[in-house]
Amino acid sequence: MMIDDLVAGFPPDRLVRDPDVLRSFAHDEAEWAPHGTPVAAIRPHTAEEVQAVVRLCLRHRVPLVTRGAGTGLSGGANALDGCVILVTDKLTAIKEIDERERFAVVEPGVVNDDLGAACAERGLWYPPDPASSPWSTIGGNVATNAGGVCCMKYGVTRDYVLGLQVVTGTGELVRLGRRTAKGVAGYDLAGLMVGSEGTLGVLTEITVRLRPARGPERTVAGYFDTTVAAGEAAAAVAARGVVPSALELVDRHCLAAVDAWKNMGLSADANVVLLGRTDTPGALGEHEAAVLLECFENAGATWAAQSSDETEANALFAARRLAYPALERLGPVLTEDVCVPTQAVPEMLARIDAAARRHDVVIANVAHVGDGNLHPLLVTPPGDENARKAAQAAFEDIISGALDLGGTVTGEHGVGLLKQAGLTRELGPAVLEMHRAVKRALDPHGILNPGKVFL
Amino acid sequence: MMIDDLVAGFPPDRLVRDPDVLRSFAHDEAEWAPHGTPVAAIRPHTAEEVQAVVRLCLRHRVPLVTRGAGTGLSGGANALDGCVILVTDKLTAIKEIDERERFAVVEPGVVNDDLGAACAERGLWYPPDPASSPWSTIGGNVATNAGGVCCMKYGVTRDYVLGLQVVTGTGELVRLGRRTAKGVAGYDLAGLMVGSEGTLGVLTEITVRLRPARGPERTVAGYFDTTVAAGEAAAAVAARGVVPSALELVDRHCLAAVDAWKNMGLSADANVVLLGRTDTPGALGEHEAAVLLECFENAGATWAAQSSDETEANALFAARRLAYPALERLGPVLTEDVCVPTQAVPEMLARIDAAARRHDVVIANVAHVGDGNLHPLLVTPPGDENARKAAQAAFEDIISGALDLGGTVTGEHGVGLLKQAGLTRELGPAVLEMHRAVKRALDPHGILNPGKVFL
Repeated sequence: MMIDDLVAGFPPDRLVRDPDVLRSFAHDEAEWAPHGTPVAAIRPHTAEEVQAVVRLCLRHRVPLVTRGAGTGLSGGANALDGCVILVTDKLTAIKEIDERERFAVVEPGVVNDDLGAACAERGLWYPPDPASSPWSTIGGNVATNAGGVCCMKYGVTRDYVLGLQVVTGTGELVRLGRRTAKGVAGYDLAGLMVGSEGTLGVLTEITVRLRPARGPERTVAGYFDTTVAAGEAAAAVAARGVVPSALELVDRHCLAAVDAWKNMGLSADANVVLLGRTDTPGALGEHEAAVLLECFENAGATWAAQSSDETEANALFAARRLAYPALERLGPVLTEDVCVPTQAVPEMLARIDAAARRHDVVIANVAHVGDGNLHPLLVTPPGDENARKAAQAAFEDIISGALDLGGTVTGEHGVGLLKQAGLTRELGPAVLEMHRAVKRALDPHGILNPGKVFL
Repeated sequence: MMIDDLVAGFPPDRLVRDPDVLRSFAHDEAEWAPHGTPVAAIRPHTAEEVQAVVRLCLRHRVPLVTRGAGTGLSGGANALDGCVILVTDKLTAIKEIDERERFAVVEPGVVNDDLGAACAERGLWYPPDPASSPWSTIGGNVATNAGGVCCMKYGVTRDYVLGLQVVTGTGELVRLGRRTAKGVAGYDLAGLMVGSEGTLGVLTEITVRLRPARGPERTVAGYFDTTVAAGEAAAAVAARGVVPSALELVDRHCLAAVDAWKNMGLSADANVVLLGRTDTPGALGEHEAAVLLECFENAGATWAAQSSDETEANALFAARRLAYPALERLGPVLTEDVCVPTQAVPEMLARIDAAARRHDVVIANVAHVGDGNLHPLLVTPPGDENARKAAQAAFEDIISGALDLGGTVTGEHGVGLLKQAGLTRELGPAVLEMHRAVKRALDPHGILNPGKVFL
């Protein structure tokens, strides 16, 4: 029996069999995605223990689901019946920060903000900043190729992963990638692991590139009557060739939910708030802020200004970050994550409005609108099955709209379970077959998070 | 017979059977790499014709070697006996440049500088700039994940590839990747194709991200007595957290060879010239130039100054670009391409010197020294078999040195044939087995450039 081998193979503090704790490990934050019941969870302390877990699962042909903080929004870390859950919460060492070469070597369970703080102490910066950064782990960020707010200027997790240590689907502990600035020695297998959602290997160590710390940002805020008008402002910024360090959209549903929860005293004067930032120093930064302001005003902002009060600006960004958990308090939230070309953003936002009306669903909007990555959040009253069906129909309409406009079904959350049908539509049969072939090649026994991403 | 099917299947202008022309297609610029004799070459005009070639090769189990401009330096495009060579020189359309979304869609045979010129007309910029940019193609750049001069600040080809159209090893014509700023829909198969040297698919279309055109650069030049001193200056720049837009090393062997060829009147006062640039505007750019100058002087520059004459600075950069072809005129050149951590650059340059002395080989040095990517060029007199053996021994010593210092055997040229032994040392058996598994998955009949990269 698998469980006997786990008991025999690991110290008792590594193993979790308590059903209540196991239940808490059985799903991520994608409330709408199904999940099964694991037989056990294990909390390895070393790469070698991770390897031992994978080898046990191989021997018993038991599925292995790896889990960071469980902040995923697509069900990628959800349990399968009879699986083992590998939890990375004991793999939290920041093993090295090299200030001169500007890279960090971390274990997968390190929380994003903890790495950020350690870097900041040394005048360095790890840019990827998903809204979940106070909780989510670098391992989970790598598994989903997480994005965030500053990614429109600085790139996503993929752009920062230099090297990985991984346990493969055949139980080997290997190093992929490099520590040097450049390198083309063989296939980019480290890159292939990024965003593969635990289906091709289990991460045991991650080497990420760092940047020098940046200077302060200037914030430009605008109020709009409609998401579409705010989207037009964002499209105009992109068309002007300015790349802000942030360009975020938050609507009144989100602001109200955050305010109700945190009592931050957020202004409710606007239906939609657009928040732009530039971190470019000097005159060029002033110019960029002026372009943002001009684009906001030309698109019909009811109010827009360069912020003279960074405390207020930071509060608005904090509200944007809290939008998802704040809405979750109101009922089951179905999160969208489409990404469309920047010039298609106004049309996509209009289609989201239309889907909300057509299906009579409350859709709140937050968006990394600067890079076309929209997060309509479909909110339904708890226990209302009809509302749930309506939301599901709206969700499908939004996916259709994104594909129709040349977009993708997932910009940064990953496929997990929620986007599998969308993925099939986006990729088509020949590319799906390539996925299956790569999966068979690197996980020949199908033990690594099977049934996720694609079928 | 394969050849009968090629004659029957394609208009006569697509097919090359003339032995002299075939010979010219049988190898790239890696003069030391072996090559065989192809049965034919084919110059498709469309993606569908490329697909037809792949399918013919599949049917007959004939190896297919894809070739851009043949400027490769590792033998990656070298012919195998009995293979078909697919030449991309008729696939030269720039199909689309989207100014607002900032991407370009090109056929693989488009020359790098031609794309650059088309972008410049629209106020846009495609950064990857290998020294071969006047001749090399975007397809070849993607196949090798080409780097260049500005890559230390702006990244390599991989960082600009958004999407690809590819004919797979099973003869399917598929689209990989996306056109949006972000996207995590499935495995990063587009990224996997980049740098795979024609072993996983044949490119038929490439979508690259563009940047807004940048402003003028400031140049700081320094003269040094030794490569090691110049390397110390480069390491100091990296340690200071400044990322120049270029930091190039050229030694007197290269300058003399270029001058002898092009009569550019280059200064020969220095053993080693270090060329730094910053394109950061305003006061920060001035500061960065001052840091470069300070680092040059502190490392013992015999002369250093911010250039007041950009014509002279451009001439020095042009000389750096011409170093390889200029040296080739003097005899067979064996090109190294190691990349080491920036702080190990002085030590690596010292080891290159030591290898030259130990084996009595002339080693010229050019280097993207800012990112640790060194190109020692081993020059031997034509026809001197002993010198050739000595150069080969020095080449192996340099590879050992790079691995010993935590570097990689190839920073930007690719593995091809010349670095296969080095790759085996760098990756080890388990990672090589992953390569073989991925290759079998995507090219199950082994027809795509077999025997290259790894065995």
